[in-house]
Amino acid sequence: MTLPASWTSPLPSPDSEFSERAQARQNVLTKPPGSLGRLESVAIALAAQQRRALPAVDKVHITIFAADHGVCCEGISAFPQEVTAQMIINFAQGGAAISVMAKHLGASLEVVDLGTVGETPHHMPGVLSSPIAPGTKNLLTEPAMTENQLEQALAAGDQAAERAAQSGSELYISGDMGIGNTTSAAAVACALLGEPATLLVGAGTGLSADAVSHKADVVTRALERHGQDQTPTAVLASLGGFEIAAMAGSFLGAAARGIPVLVDGFIASVAALAAVRQQPALLEWLHFGHCSAEQGHQRILDALHAAPLLNLGMRLGEASGAAVAVPIMRSACALHNQMASFADAGVSDGSSAS
Amino acid sequence: MTLPASWTSPLPSPDSEFSERAQARQNVLTKPPGSLGRLESVAIALAAQQRRALPAVDKVHITIFAADHGVCCEGISAFPQEVTAQMIINFAQGGAAISVMAKHLGASLEVVDLGTVGETPHHMPGVLSSPIAPGTKNLLTEPAMTENQLEQALAAGDQAAERAAQSGSELYISGDMGIGNTTSAAAVACALLGEPATLLVGAGTGLSADAVSHKADVVTRALERHGQDQTPTAVLASLGGFEIAAMAGSFLGAAARGIPVLVDGFIASVAALAAVRQQPALLEWLHFGHCSAEQGHQRILDALHAAPLLNLGMRLGEASGAAVAVPIMRSACALHNQMASFADAGVSDGSSAS
Repeated sequence: MTLPASWTSPLPSPDSEFSERAQARQNVLTKPPGSLGRLESVAIALAAQQRRALPAVDKVHITIFAADHGVCCEGISAFPQEVTAQMIINFAQGGAAISVMAKHLGASLEVVDLGTVGETPHHMPGVLSSPIAPGTKNLLTEPAMTENQLEQALAAGDQAAERAAQSGSELYISGDMGIGNTTSAAAVACALLGEPATLLVGAGTGLSADAVSHKADVVTRALERHGQDQTPTAVLASLGGFEIAAMAGSFLGAAARGIPVLVDGFIASVAALAAVRQQPALLEWLHFGHCSAEQGHQRILDALHAAPLLNLGMRLGEASGAAVAVPIMRSACALHNQMASFADAGVSDGSSAS
Repeated sequence: MTLPASWTSPLPSPDSEFSERAQARQNVLTKPPGSLGRLESVAIALAAQQRRALPAVDKVHITIFAADHGVCCEGISAFPQEVTAQMIINFAQGGAAISVMAKHLGASLEVVDLGTVGETPHHMPGVLSSPIAPGTKNLLTEPAMTENQLEQALAAGDQAAERAAQSGSELYISGDMGIGNTTSAAAVACALLGEPATLLVGAGTGLSADAVSHKADVVTRALERHGQDQTPTAVLASLGGFEIAAMAGSFLGAAARGIPVLVDGFIASVAALAAVRQQPALLEWLHFGHCSAEQGHQRILDALHAAPLLNLGMRLGEASGAAVAVPIMRSACALHNQMASFADAGVSDGSSAS
């Protein structure tokens, strides 16, 4: 197989010297030590990842990967497959949640169309057309994609990371659009974690309890067909989606280029899990935006030892949860960079108190 | 007693018609119904509170109330009492966490000095000098304040809400500064809830386990001295602080003027608890910014049936947690106001799907 260098070559590490300097700075700012909680650890991690004394996440690059899923013919989604292509148009026209959030944050947003059942107009602004096929095959009856298709998806991810690097992005976010992709993502997670489908299959866009049960049955049978003892690369090919593989590739691509990553919800976290299983050092580059309401996300987060910044009951995908978490990281940077020290402000630091 | 009208007069209610219209709008935006989680309920609540189809929290008014506490002579804080006055100067000079956050958010910040042990310069920009006394009395041995002092503190709160209204604020936030005030706040909460001190007394700015135990003992003895069967007004006078009473008064003042309130952490939530016990209808006007790492905050939130937006392990006070939550509310408004509907975007809404 021809895989992107970032998929197989060792990743750089965040810089521990900048981490130590950032920790020392936090300790002398005018507040009780540790009293900014996670905002302190976020600023310290960003300083080490960006190799900067004063970290920033002003320039944010958001890539949405969109693709359709052959498994939809098993009736596992509340929405028809045409919605994937319709939503690509909605992203481009500014009406989707992530379009609104990208504008609100001043972030750059691009949509990469990896192949849909529905038709999309050619040459839409903000949409990169890079079709691999009109969706994956039905993972219940055959591998979701060929080795060559997986290579294309991983390469599309790496290329998104390269564009983020070229534009000087300080944070990389990846989002998903693909009707049926919670089924594919749950199957990938089950295969990687050795967990039963019932633990990781959820309601997706809004299934009834009966429909969730059917969806879990589809995943169980898919796992029996493909087996669970596979490499991350093989799992993505047999059970994944083009957008899930591309997200995984983009995370390693961003880390390889020294760009910290903010992971969105269930689909993005499964992609991150596959990428971390491929290269465990990736974990040092990941921040997690939110815990989704989708059943199974908490289990994925636990497997990644991840503590997300938000828990707002969101379950939309398309990077929306990560986008809502960006201001938390910006606040962390503002406080780290702009607060006065005890010495500068002439405030007693409590070291002389009882 | 001469109490502000907002302390005793019935509050207005948020407008249920705007709530219903906002809910109807959420249901047709291009996302699975409910998939934005808390962001949907925040936008709907703001629409009802602000009586607007398109809610906004662009104009945010932050008032920090600062005051000292006589109970500090019992050795219940990790920081010396002089820090209260030093921090007022730090607020004014822009070096404190809330100063940085207010600037970052484009929020207006004012500090109301209600009386400190340390000296502060006259006529600092951004500081309103409104001294009641150089701190409260020691609540372990006598009432923290007189009836007249309580009236002054509640009035100071109401006046802050009036300034917020005069400047057209869309959201009111109140923060605290006062070395020793977690002891006073825990005592107030114990008296209002009938809980033992051990449940609500925590480490504050960073006490050792032994020191927390001593602090709980001080609160236990204070509760024995003053008794637990008191009105909210009486509890604030006997066990409160000037800043805690002012915050409570400001919350009712804001609600009386139709301004939604975003409540900060432990101290602010205790003030909110006192105000809600005074007027339960206040609850309809409150949003909660975060769950503090201070032991006891979760219990206060439970008593208020409050689900805070963030849980980031913060424990700084001075409205910092509420300030960090403001962008969540702004994102909720942006999504509510700017997303396309299924009909506008030509996206299938799933109602025809199986």
